[in-house]
Amino acid sequence: MAEVVVGIDLGGTAIKTAVVTSEGEVTGWGSRPTRADAGPEAIMDDMAAGVEQALSDSGHAREEVLAVGAGSPGPMNWREGIIFEAPNLAGWRNVKLAEGLSNRLNLPCYIENDANAAGYGEYWQGAGRGTSTMCLLTLGTGIGGGLVINGKLFRGIDGTAAEFGHMKIQRDGRECGCGGRGCLETYGSVTGMIRTAMEGLGDHPDSSLAKLGDGENRLTGSIIADAAEEGDAYAREVIRLTGEWIGIGISNLVNILNPERVVLCGGMIAAGELLFEPIRETAMANAFEVPAKRAQIVPAGLGQDSGVIGAAGVALERYTLEHNGS
Amino acid sequence: MAEVVVGIDLGGTAIKTAVVTSEGEVTGWGSRPTRADAGPEAIMDDMAAGVEQALSDSGHAREEVLAVGAGSPGPMNWREGIIFEAPNLAGWRNVKLAEGLSNRLNLPCYIENDANAAGYGEYWQGAGRGTSTMCLLTLGTGIGGGLVINGKLFRGIDGTAAEFGHMKIQRDGRECGCGGRGCLETYGSVTGMIRTAMEGLGDHPDSSLAKLGDGENRLTGSIIADAAEEGDAYAREVIRLTGEWIGIGISNLVNILNPERVVLCGGMIAAGELLFEPIRETAMANAFEVPAKRAQIVPAGLGQDSGVIGAAGVALERYTLEHNGS
Repeated sequence: MAEVVVGIDLGGTAIKTAVVTSEGEVTGWGSRPTRADAGPEAIMDDMAAGVEQALSDSGHAREEVLAVGAGSPGPMNWREGIIFEAPNLAGWRNVKLAEGLSNRLNLPCYIENDANAAGYGEYWQGAGRGTSTMCLLTLGTGIGGGLVINGKLFRGIDGTAAEFGHMKIQRDGRECGCGGRGCLETYGSVTGMIRTAMEGLGDHPDSSLAKLGDGENRLTGSIIADAAEEGDAYAREVIRLTGEWIGIGISNLVNILNPERVVLCGGMIAAGELLFEPIRETAMANAFEVPAKRAQIVPAGLGQDSGVIGAAGVALERYTLEHNGS
Repeated sequence: MAEVVVGIDLGGTAIKTAVVTSEGEVTGWGSRPTRADAGPEAIMDDMAAGVEQALSDSGHAREEVLAVGAGSPGPMNWREGIIFEAPNLAGWRNVKLAEGLSNRLNLPCYIENDANAAGYGEYWQGAGRGTSTMCLLTLGTGIGGGLVINGKLFRGIDGTAAEFGHMKIQRDGRECGCGGRGCLETYGSVTGMIRTAMEGLGDHPDSSLAKLGDGENRLTGSIIADAAEEGDAYAREVIRLTGEWIGIGISNLVNILNPERVVLCGGMIAAGELLFEPIRETAMANAFEVPAKRAQIVPAGLGQDSGVIGAAGVALERYTLEHNGS
């Protein structure tokens, strides 16, 4: 009999599920849209159905499932399995997610911050394999973080650690949604990149980006990436500037944590070397030499699946801890 | 028979030694000037003599000593016990310090970065007692750091972690000795505070600080602290600004590590609440609420002795690890 875990990635648009063996091999998948307005009970029904779907896809029997892990955004009590708030889901206030899933599935269920889950997924089966200490940054609308220290997911005493996106790197810099100023997220996220592009647009009337309008024609991350790929000099410059800011943030992590690897995921990494080159150069120039040479800065190895595989991995880690006490 | 460890704090001006029981009680002290120009062999003789002095002061027999730990500045290989460079000591290049001490004392000897040792000392017997995860910042000429995670000193894979002073908090900010710009150290160290004071001196002709000259009459950290204590408004303002910068740096550590405590030591903390108040306010305003409320920002509990007691503690931790394998 195999031992498997099931991961759930509860996103704003889709619920993804995956069955993963204790060795990290994915044996089944499930996916369904997130009914964001349907309320927690309906979404928990969908999550449970997604677990059954992935199990059926995998061919594994229910008896082989050790535990289920669900990665979710928003502040939570990961120990008790309660979501305090889920920004993109209607009516999610103090939802007992672990209990709700466990009641539906009759299996041990755990919850985890989605960026933590992605970090653990990359450590377990992705670009962080073989390291002891690594950082993950999710470069999307915002910037999330995940941190593995000495081979274990590091959450901090309240489970709020690894908020890399809200590291101040320019004290008097851009205003951030968090209420602060100069957070890495205001420069290094897709939203930050768009802000950078908008700021200089008037000076670059020849750029294809300057020809965009409002509404459906407004500037997006993929428009900037596409323009850069087509050789638009200003779009390339914007990506370079964005990479430099990310490199500053990473140089801080390198000086603070001396990690073996820094893994980047999220929509932004589609820009490829145009982005990674200034990131690596800036991190190298701003961190101390020994840790800067050590820290490999690499794209995620699991693509869009870091979160769902990591949620399974975290469930395995917690189940093992609780049952073996080690 | 008691079990004791001996700590050595190798500073630029003094070699301090302390005998500490495995329960953390200091039972003997030693101290002698650092003959900075005498070369490594002479200084290792002095360090060994300091160990004997403290042992004699303590009344403990040599047979009771488990190990000796030496805290030293500068880049090093802590595992092998080699100091690559010691900035303030003549002729220190690739010095096999652990071996040199061990040959002289016939005891297991370990070395540790001095800020790491201070951090561990505060965790073990000072203001960090009872925590699981804590940060220490040494606020002196520069800013050093020590990091304890899950009850263990965290050094990173190359032993270079916890360089909190070189966290960039103002990307286009002040030039730093490390070659970068906007490092916390350029604002939050004593040197940074003096820079801040100098920058605004022309606008504050009534301040007692404006009446100072060059050479022996030049501005120092204690002159600023003394002027502030005597009510000089500009000196108070300078300390407040410095505290705000330190608070920004700490807010980053709080968001990244969610520590239970942040311990501050070094010459700067003599400024007391004039400094701690802006630090706490700024950290609270710039970090997320839950981890900001958690992280107590407190002065060192061991005064000037965090380093020497911590060096003993680190020796105990390493000796125990090597001999119990846990």
